[in-house]
Amino acid sequence: MQYYHHPEIGLSFDGIISAVEEAFAEHCKGIVQMPAKVYVTFDTGDFRTMPAYIPGLDIAGVKIVNVHPGNRERGLPTVMALTVIIDAATGEPSALLNATRLTDFRTGAAGAVATKYLSPKRDIVLGLIGSGRQAETQLEAISRVCEIREIRVWSRKERNQKAFLSQFSQYEGKATSLERTCDCDVLCTTTPSTSPLVRDEWISEGMHINAIGADAPGKQELDPAILTRARVFIDDYEQATHSGEINVPIAKGLFSSADIAGTLGEVVCGKKGREHDSEITIFDSTGLALQDLAIAKIALNNGDGVDLPFP
Amino acid sequence: MQYYHHPEIGLSFDGIISAVEEAFAEHCKGIVQMPAKVYVTFDTGDFRTMPAYIPGLDIAGVKIVNVHPGNRERGLPTVMALTVIIDAATGEPSALLNATRLTDFRTGAAGAVATKYLSPKRDIVLGLIGSGRQAETQLEAISRVCEIREIRVWSRKERNQKAFLSQFSQYEGKATSLERTCDCDVLCTTTPSTSPLVRDEWISEGMHINAIGADAPGKQELDPAILTRARVFIDDYEQATHSGEINVPIAKGLFSSADIAGTLGEVVCGKKGREHDSEITIFDSTGLALQDLAIAKIALNNGDGVDLPFP
Repeated sequence: MQYYHHPEIGLSFDGIISAVEEAFAEHCKGIVQMPAKVYVTFDTGDFRTMPAYIPGLDIAGVKIVNVHPGNRERGLPTVMALTVIIDAATGEPSALLNATRLTDFRTGAAGAVATKYLSPKRDIVLGLIGSGRQAETQLEAISRVCEIREIRVWSRKERNQKAFLSQFSQYEGKATSLERTCDCDVLCTTTPSTSPLVRDEWISEGMHINAIGADAPGKQELDPAILTRARVFIDDYEQATHSGEINVPIAKGLFSSADIAGTLGEVVCGKKGREHDSEITIFDSTGLALQDLAIAKIALNNGDGVDLPFP
Repeated sequence: MQYYHHPEIGLSFDGIISAVEEAFAEHCKGIVQMPAKVYVTFDTGDFRTMPAYIPGLDIAGVKIVNVHPGNRERGLPTVMALTVIIDAATGEPSALLNATRLTDFRTGAAGAVATKYLSPKRDIVLGLIGSGRQAETQLEAISRVCEIREIRVWSRKERNQKAFLSQFSQYEGKATSLERTCDCDVLCTTTPSTSPLVRDEWISEGMHINAIGADAPGKQELDPAILTRARVFIDDYEQATHSGEINVPIAKGLFSSADIAGTLGEVVCGKKGREHDSEITIFDSTGLALQDLAIAKIALNNGDGVDLPFP
């Protein structure tokens, strides 16, 4: 059994995006085993267990990931993750990966895959609601599939907006209002908001939105009216209806699972997709174990682990 | 994050039984979080993910365990397990335990707890159907809660019966037929059988049976007629009905979940139990994540781990 402390070192976003895209294509074939995330809750946060097996990529395992919003005050990341890789032939745990950074990267990659297939434009103004790690990885990954003409970023704190723009000074960038940020071609929402930040009247025809932030019941970033006039693609039915952007609108009767246009897997393998340039598309990302296994697979090929005796 | 390769070294069965008993008592209070095991299947076996949180013992985590019947030919155990301990306050994975032997021990401990509360006799003839690791740990654990006057063991292979008896030569022992093995006070069935081995007419009033072997749909060791005249206690409703001794009789309409007499947690905290000496009691064990966390907790206090950098 090998332990990989920094399996993200040396990975390229091009490679990660390809791997995640391939995993979504496998998902579309219907032979990926991926039970829904299981939640265990604490007073200060929760942890989620995400097992899966992708036969086509010969990789199986479990990601264990927490969300503890108070961790920053303790000097720890809010989200930390460990992936355990299981050898399909013997069932032996063959590798352990610190998946804390990999988790950010694979979420960015899913946003890039969705943007590649669903945005009608390749030369874009990118709007970012939120300026944390998820915004960073959306930008980095989408830059591999689109030409980014300008970035517009909004954050609750002005200093976070400025810091983000100086981190990505290679782009023409603007720290703007929520409304001005939404005046873009591709919008990524990456906040932990529990009430809509993005108003319906700010969203124009032909836009693509990656709704990344909502990953637990009660979270939402978009006015439900946007969902009803857009075509909403999800990553997984059970997870999206339980904890994705659509979870609150579904609970309130404003959206139903019958309104879902398809999964990202179906988009990647050409079964579903954007039908004309003027429609609005949304990718509601909750984060799938198959993304974690896809990135783990290339990280294992890339890095050196420490040997641990087992069993 | 610490890795423990042999956390079982130095553990006593007395300590393990106490810890598992305490965890079942916590279960009875209704505040343990323990989603049902999640299965992922391969051509050659499966792996199961078992998360839980026992607030009263301040321990949380996930056991990941496989079952690959062909592993012996490869020189690997059929069952291997890794437990990841999660710090409830921060969500950080704080420890990793090779739980391969711990899994056998905690199953033995549950059998001992059930025997302690449900067997009307303390001075017993112990019958063992099967002579593998599960039979060994049932014997070792039950010897802490009962005086064992004699052991009777049955196995498909005579040489396994003999080997078992010579391993436990401190006991008066007999390698006998299935029928003679069932002529005992406490019977433990520990085989992977998918058809009943134990006939109804061999089971006398006042016996207690630990049904250990069935842990997946389709497995069963007891004639369903025994279940209908006995009082059947389980570890967990969802797991027992899905994969315990009762799973096949339930699927065939020969037993129903309404016939279950209670859980081991309810037995430990005195809510349910044996009502008179002549009834037959059965403990249908599927193995719970709370047992794995209980044994992990004492193993962590006991052993030295190797430091791994995280996150």
